[in-house]
Amino acid sequence: MLAALRNQARDAAPRKCEGVSPQRYVAIRSATVDLCEGLSADDCQAQGMPDASPVKWHLAHTTWFFDTLVLGGEARAPFASLFNSYYRSVGAPWPRAQRGLLTRPSLDEVLAWRERVDRDVLALLEGGGGAATDHIELGLQHEQQHQELLLADLKHLLSQNPLRPACRPTAPRPRAEAAPPRWIARPAGLVEIGHNGDGFCFDNELPRHRVWLEPHALASRPVTNGEFLEFVRDGGYRNPLLWLADGWEAAQAGGWQRPLYWSAACDSAFTLGGDQPLRPDEPACHLSYYEADAYARWVGARLPREAEWEAGAASHGEVWEWTASAYAAYPGYRAPAGPLGEYNGKFMCNQLVLRGGSCVTPPGHVRPSYRNFFPPHARWQFSGVRLAKDLA
Amino acid sequence: MLAALRNQARDAAPRKCEGVSPQRYVAIRSATVDLCEGLSADDCQAQGMPDASPVKWHLAHTTWFFDTLVLGGEARAPFASLFNSYYRSVGAPWPRAQRGLLTRPSLDEVLAWRERVDRDVLALLEGGGGAATDHIELGLQHEQQHQELLLADLKHLLSQNPLRPACRPTAPRPRAEAAPPRWIARPAGLVEIGHNGDGFCFDNELPRHRVWLEPHALASRPVTNGEFLEFVRDGGYRNPLLWLADGWEAAQAGGWQRPLYWSAACDSAFTLGGDQPLRPDEPACHLSYYEADAYARWVGARLPREAEWEAGAASHGEVWEWTASAYAAYPGYRAPAGPLGEYNGKFMCNQLVLRGGSCVTPPGHVRPSYRNFFPPHARWQFSGVRLAKDLA
Amino acid sequence: MLAALRNQARDAAPRKCEGVSPQRYVAIRSATVDLCEGLSADDCQAQGMPDASPVKWHLAHTTWFFDTLVLGGEARAPFASLFNSYYRSVGAPWPRAQRGLLTRPSLDEVLAWRERVDRDVLALLEGGGGAATDHIELGLQHEQQHQELLLADLKHLLSQNPLRPACRPTAPRPRAEAAPPRWIARPAGLVEIGHNGDGFCFDNELPRHRVWLEPHALASRPVTNGEFLEFVRDGGYRNPLLWLADGWEAAQAGGWQRPLYWSAACDSAFTLGGDQPLRPDEPACHLSYYEADAYARWVGARLPREAEWEAGAASHGEVWEWTASAYAAYPGYRAPAGPLGEYNGKFMCNQLVLRGGSCVTPPGHVRPSYRNFFPPHARWQFSGVRLAKDLA
Amino acid sequence: MLAALRNQARDAAPRKCEGVSPQRYVAIRSATVDLCEGLSADDCQAQGMPDASPVKWHLAHTTWFFDTLVLGGEARAPFASLFNSYYRSVGAPWPRAQRGLLTRPSLDEVLAWRERVDRDVLALLEGGGGAATDHIELGLQHEQQHQELLLADLKHLLSQNPLRPACRPTAPRPRAEAAPPRWIARPAGLVEIGHNGDGFCFDNELPRHRVWLEPHALASRPVTNGEFLEFVRDGGYRNPLLWLADGWEAAQAGGWQRPLYWSAACDSAFTLGGDQPLRPDEPACHLSYYEADAYARWVGARLPREAEWEAGAASHGEVWEWTASAYAAYPGYRAPAGPLGEYNGKFMCNQLVLRGGSCVTPPGHVRPSYRNFFPPHARWQFSGVRLAKDLA
Repeated sequence: MLAALRNQARDAAPRKCEGVSPQRYVAIRSATVDLCEGLSADDCQAQGMPDASPVKWHLAHTTWFFDTLVLGGEARAPFASLFNSYYRSVGAPWPRAQRGLLTRPSLDEVLAWRERVDRDVLALLEGGGGAATDHIELGLQHEQQHQELLLADLKHLLSQNPLRPACRPTAPRPRAEAAPPRWIARPAGLVEIGHNGDGFCFDNELPRHRVWLEPHALASRPVTNGEFLEFVRDGGYRNPLLWLADGWEAAQAGGWQRPLYWSAACDSAFTLGGDQPLRPDEPACHLSYYEADAYARWVGARLPREAEWEAGAASHGEVWEWTASAYAAYPGYRAPAGPLGEYNGKFMCNQLVLRGGSCVTPPGHVRPSYRNFFPPHARWQFSGVRLAKDLA
Repeated sequence: MLAALRNQARDAAPRKCEGVSPQRYVAIRSATVDLCEGLSADDCQAQGMPDASPVKWHLAHTTWFFDTLVLGGEARAPFASLFNSYYRSVGAPWPRAQRGLLTRPSLDEVLAWRERVDRDVLALLEGGGGAATDHIELGLQHEQQHQELLLADLKHLLSQNPLRPACRPTAPRPRAEAAPPRWIARPAGLVEIGHNGDGFCFDNELPRHRVWLEPHALASRPVTNGEFLEFVRDGGYRNPLLWLADGWEAAQAGGWQRPLYWSAACDSAFTLGGDQPLRPDEPACHLSYYEADAYARWVGARLPREAEWEAGAASHGEVWEWTASAYAAYPGYRAPAGPLGEYNGKFMCNQLVLRGGSCVTPPGHVRPSYRNFFPPHARWQFSGVRLAKDLA
Repeated sequence: MLAALRNQARDAAPRKCEGVSPQRYVAIRSATVDLCEGLSADDCQAQGMPDASPVKWHLAHTTWFFDTLVLGGEARAPFASLFNSYYRSVGAPWPRAQRGLLTRPSLDEVLAWRERVDRDVLALLEGGGGAATDHIELGLQHEQQHQELLLADLKHLLSQNPLRPACRPTAPRPRAEAAPPRWIARPAGLVEIGHNGDGFCFDNELPRHRVWLEPHALASRPVTNGEFLEFVRDGGYRNPLLWLADGWEAAQAGGWQRPLYWSAACDSAFTLGGDQPLRPDEPACHLSYYEADAYARWVGARLPREAEWEAGAASHGEVWEWTASAYAAYPGYRAPAGPLGEYNGKFMCNQLVLRGGSCVTPPGHVRPSYRNFFPPHARWQFSGVRLAKDLA
Repeated sequence: MLAALRNQARDAAPRKCEGVSPQRYVAIRSATVDLCEGLSADDCQAQGMPDASPVKWHLAHTTWFFDTLVLGGEARAPFASLFNSYYRSVGAPWPRAQRGLLTRPSLDEVLAWRERVDRDVLALLEGGGGAATDHIELGLQHEQQHQELLLADLKHLLSQNPLRPACRPTAPRPRAEAAPPRWIARPAGLVEIGHNGDGFCFDNELPRHRVWLEPHALASRPVTNGEFLEFVRDGGYRNPLLWLADGWEAAQAGGWQRPLYWSAACDSAFTLGGDQPLRPDEPACHLSYYEADAYARWVGARLPREAEWEAGAASHGEVWEWTASAYAAYPGYRAPAGPLGEYNGKFMCNQLVLRGGSCVTPPGHVRPSYRNFFPPHARWQFSGVRLAKDLA
């Protein structure tokens, strides 16, 4: 009887890709390895926490993606399947919390594997790419996502070392923004959000659809360190009435008293270049959703919804901006068939959408319809706050 | 500089209440005690799990609500503050997971306290209620919410006892629905949702506002036991590709193989009347969001968004119906000032909205704009599934 | 090949029992119920922590012991098997941490079951007891052990209630001992320990055997509150060099800063009669092995070994006294055949022996060879410290 | 008043050391580095479980021992204090479970530090050693203990890798022993145990003292794989009546069904040389105390007490042999003054003594009075079973 309710056609949402040039392939793949300059094999092995991954794992997993999902057939390494992250349709993934146990293959073996895979993908590309073009494009976008994750995970790992090591002389940091914030108003009305046009997008940005927005205003820029410091000094971390119930629990359990990486004196912060003085005009960063939300409540404002953000975004910030929108399927969303259907859809629960991009997002990777997502307690991403408010 | 962004006015959203009659007050308060008929003091003391509360606690907490938030001033019992659930603006709540440790006050003392409080509230009501009327109304609505929670918590407690006790001869169960399901379509368009009119509503149902809906259809009734059994028999609980990632983890960690309370043979279920044969035409019940979502994916459908549900709901079901909407503030939402601001707003994270009502919801308690909410792993509520789908 | 190593004969160690008089049976069984005077059914239901048991459970479990292990055959209650504590040879025990979930049977039903069982055991005794005499005697000794456990568990439960309830007007407390401590020396030599003579003993007190003792001295009395307070004031709880490694971890994890039940000001302590002033001359009580050991190290002494204690004990103290001896089988020990073989032997690991007896031990229950045992972190028993030292 | 009980003199037990030759120092220190041949920096970084340590940490910690406790004064590396294991009298140790996070210093930096420390210790030795001789000797004995731990920890780490890597072509394994076991009897009597003579010993082997032994017999050799396999096949892992209560819990929680490292078919075992066929005549290895004890009960025998073992040991086995003796201070034991007082004494709780030595114990490291110790659940050491029994 239920058969009548069943949707038979379950096609992947169409995403047109222009061809991928060998030059671009090489540039993006090399950029990942370049991020590891100055790191020892020791640095690349360790897993700083169950939610994060070792640098070596990122190098290997992005290679597994091409090896398994683009080249397919015979794996170019006997250990390939160890680096399946979460694609259950192609085997049983190695447990996330145990990625740091994989001392074999060694870093050198992983790098050699990268070369073998790159050689074969380039051969494919030089033959025009053919049916694989879309998957190669997705592989490159995936690689870029992991470039940012690699840096966030590495920063978190090194921050736990009492030696406070600097892994590179100059570390990417959000640019300071000195101008006072302004409210940018938008009247009620119907807007369209979701990807539009021919370029690449992820399935979770589709389909483009209409959303009704009530009158509201967005702040002209993210909250700065100096502004967030006022919240800290006003006892914001000690007042449960400012927090979501789950947020207050997380803050107590984790002993949160200030943003992650800030020194106890609130005058310096750990960076990929070691401890550096806190710059008041820099966007506040490494905030969880709970902290962002508590800050907004303290100010008497709120966080933006993702449709408000997308409709209003003129430029991208220097930090990912938490929205008040739970990560969920757009109306009409269809997960693609096959393993790639596991890329995004199955994470549409218990996470909040972040918009914008950050100082460690690879150039050209993001767009206004781009949806990043993390659970509300996550603090180790380059995430900050943009305020919004309702208008009467 | 941020002061300019701060919203000064923070008024409670207006909710007009008609007067509360002494008869209605007595009827609702008595109904709670009536639910305990046949229970021993032992039954009322135990806490079945950290997420649930003892029956005695429900009796005491609803009384604390009137004593503290309506009568105020001097508490009518020295132990009153032990039954503050989560209102941090009026003191430090006793930890939820330890509610079962409070053997003092005894059940008798709690019942005597109920009488003292009722006498004083009735005196107030006989004087017209005055400024307290709104709070008394809220207290009664709150009482009704706890009547349903009391039964869900009690059922969960008794279900763990190998004696499989029946706590009442006939237990409320969802009514069977024999008709085959139909799809009820709605074209794209702007709808209004949120409370409308003069009657009582909770702050989270306000303000009424517009939402754009894309074309979709809702099933004419919830999924039945017989239909859900097909999912179980088809290996639905063993196929990770049908589940959200967090749902699969929860199912594995909890050893889920069928709905909560079903026997291993899937032919009976535990009820407040003990083990009873499974009725195929009864709405499937005690499903988590994860199970509801997996079932919908197996069918090739999806769960409804709450605006779709509210726009389309012609009648209420016999089980709470999970929606795909995270519990969040409506555009323009303002939490009330004072302790009642903690009633709803601070839970707007990590929960999903359920709509409708259930066989244990007190008559007259719900309305189409009513928003129930629970975390996605919760199975012990009277919760089921209504299907939805996108239309081209 | 190994068969040659196998011990074929596995007889229970012989323990001669005098006959059990009906009067004594009634007196001991009644004493358990008498301990519950003034308690509500609520008090009897709750389980204060996983290591402790509800009062109702103690009432039921001691009855299960007679019903199953003495009367055997058909159980006198359909729920009997729920109160098997840990005897796997007669079925699967209900999990210890979930004893507080058993609201059915009710307290009244348990008390009625006690009466049915007592009637049948008395009938047996009036017929002379016969082959069951030894098991009845063991059941009475077991009952007395649970009388002490019941009070310790109840005290722990009530201590967690912010109302600080007194469950009886006068509570048993260790007697004050004003005399200064003396060292009582013993030269090197061979001693005999273990039960000697015709009276009842547990299997773990057998066989009597020889132990060589090096020269040492025992203190003439246990350490008092006043003496232990000096340790607290001297920073004993903040100095890791005084503690066993595992003890320091337990103290940090549990936030130990003083003995369990002492007020923060160290001037009162929770008792079964509510909060009472701390008496300096009373033996210090409710100490874990870790605290006892740290205190001894601070003084420059050590804890006694159990053979030293047994050889030297002239009288019993008012608190159980931790010894430095791990609970282990005596040379030649044989666990009895059948379910009673599970009574003691399988706990001979990860526990330390305590000797003496306490202010809540039933009169006549203990003897010099009596071996009590608890894990080293246990604080909720009536346990204290007697010092010892080596002599050159 | 208690001052009279306090032992004033708290001298270290005297342990005479012969001089340490530079050749021996170099040989022992080099042996540690030699164990790492064939390992990558990745292998040396990872921590396989909280109870185990990374190879790099072992290399660093043994060096810290000489740097801090022998050379003292100015540390030869800014990171030295990170490798303090548990000596609280010289600072706050880095948490054990987080040793794998220390990617800085790198393996290369640790090896360079080893060289700096060795150069300075050798300079001291060439000057005769002087007052430092005893500490240098202790440092070398400590180094040898870590050589065995390093291999056990490495084996455990690699065993978790699905690639089942071999880290060396031939791995040390216990020698096979084909002869049938015999019982070697000893009549009752007084024996002396503890270190005797001039050579090095640890403080926990002192003082030599008398122990009375009742008549008993020891098996002539440890239990073999073939013999233990009979226990597995007879359902030994499924019968709770064979196990200590805590052992049964550990076995259920850990899913134990056979010895650690055995394949499911019980025909091969993981070794430092990868998976190898199980040899029936080899001593059974990697058993916890709980498994050893259950096996002995199944056979109708028991485990030896450590005094029985020491009195009877004619030769050392190929596996460490669990004894039934809890690790405790000998009569008259005094922990040395200063940091070295933390070496052994504070672990005298919750552990069992193992005697003998294993196939990975450095030659010449052990002696009949040597006391190894581990908690009863530990399976990753090279530990097996020798049987004992009481004689009438």
